[in-house]
Amino acid sequence: MPKIVDHHKQKQKVAQAAMRVIKQDGLENASVRKVAVEAGISAGSMRHYFSTQQELFLFSMTLIQERVKERMTGLQLNGSTEENVLALLEQVLPLDEERRFEMEVWQAFTVKSMTEPDLQPLNAKMYDELFQMTQYCLMTLKEDGLLLDHIDLFVETERLYAVINGLALNGILQPHRLPPQLIRSVLQMHLQSITKKDMSPS
Amino acid sequence: MPKIVDHHKQKQKVAQAAMRVIKQDGLENASVRKVAVEAGISAGSMRHYFSTQQELFLFSMTLIQERVKERMTGLQLNGSTEENVLALLEQVLPLDEERRFEMEVWQAFTVKSMTEPDLQPLNAKMYDELFQMTQYCLMTLKEDGLLLDHIDLFVETERLYAVINGLALNGILQPHRLPPQLIRSVLQMHLQSITKKDMSPS
Repeated sequence: MPKIVDHHKQKQKVAQAAMRVIKQDGLENASVRKVAVEAGISAGSMRHYFSTQQELFLFSMTLIQERVKERMTGLQLNGSTEENVLALLEQVLPLDEERRFEMEVWQAFTVKSMTEPDLQPLNAKMYDELFQMTQYCLMTLKEDGLLLDHIDLFVETERLYAVINGLALNGILQPHRLPPQLIRSVLQMHLQSITKKDMSPS
Repeated sequence: MPKIVDHHKQKQKVAQAAMRVIKQDGLENASVRKVAVEAGISAGSMRHYFSTQQELFLFSMTLIQERVKERMTGLQLNGSTEENVLALLEQVLPLDEERRFEMEVWQAFTVKSMTEPDLQPLNAKMYDELFQMTQYCLMTLKEDGLLLDHIDLFVETERLYAVINGLALNGILQPHRLPPQLIRSVLQMHLQSITKKDMSPS
């Protein structure tokens, strides 16, 4: 069914154009007409893909979520547990242009969701899944006996989740003070501070 | 000069109305007309206080910054160093309705600043000052000999700053999972994890 495939591909192309417009001009200026120009299609053709701006926003949000998931499932997790956990968490930090772009656009969706009930469920889903991923990382470290004994998993999960979202926000807002290498160092230091030393032969 | 005082008070009243509209309807819908209705003044009178929407936004941002500073300078810092540090940092976390309201509105300004160069300096100033406050807290703990010996102040400041901004963001977005008491517990646990135990008589 090449036509359906083409249709989905074209929708993705339009959504990517929408994200570029959102990053450049802000969500409130991402009109259907402006996105059509950026995507290189006529305003009339837009109706075949998205009938409202909101549909376009929802599809773009789903696309970002899919990209994050694809990066995670595409990882070669064949290192130590600590290395694998680090690799997973790094997928939601602005360590390269792609992730930075996604996160800047997502910040705009997050703020929009605060006053736009229709975007709220998809935005909440993203943060819930991020939280569950954080939980999963700490559980894996615990099951492998790597977590320090005194650690309270309940509070520790909230702390790691705050470190992740804080690093992401600060890395977007203040990239000169907090470049990718320093983001990575802070996360590594944090994981080291909650795990046992010298568990594996060096 | 009662007239000047009145003028400034009225500007504050209008800016507070603007913040309520921003929280309720989003920044893009905070038109001068809508804010005038919320403030209970005529659209014509608005011109005496703010001639553009941008002026109104800049004044509102300044007002939030002043409120945070006022809360900080108003603190009775007569506890232990750890208690004082905790009290300072709690001023920028959504632990009550006032702080939650400020932070939600500030999030909207932050995203707007990404595409609006005129708001950018004031937004950057807020985050710079927050970072300096975080730095000051850790320096104070270190000078009082309370910080653990192995701590790298450079990386540790970024970690604490990420914890603060992450808790603020997560507390706004997911208040049911992360209520004020848990925000406070995470911050307390974090400070305990980097300070020496039993420094003061219990």
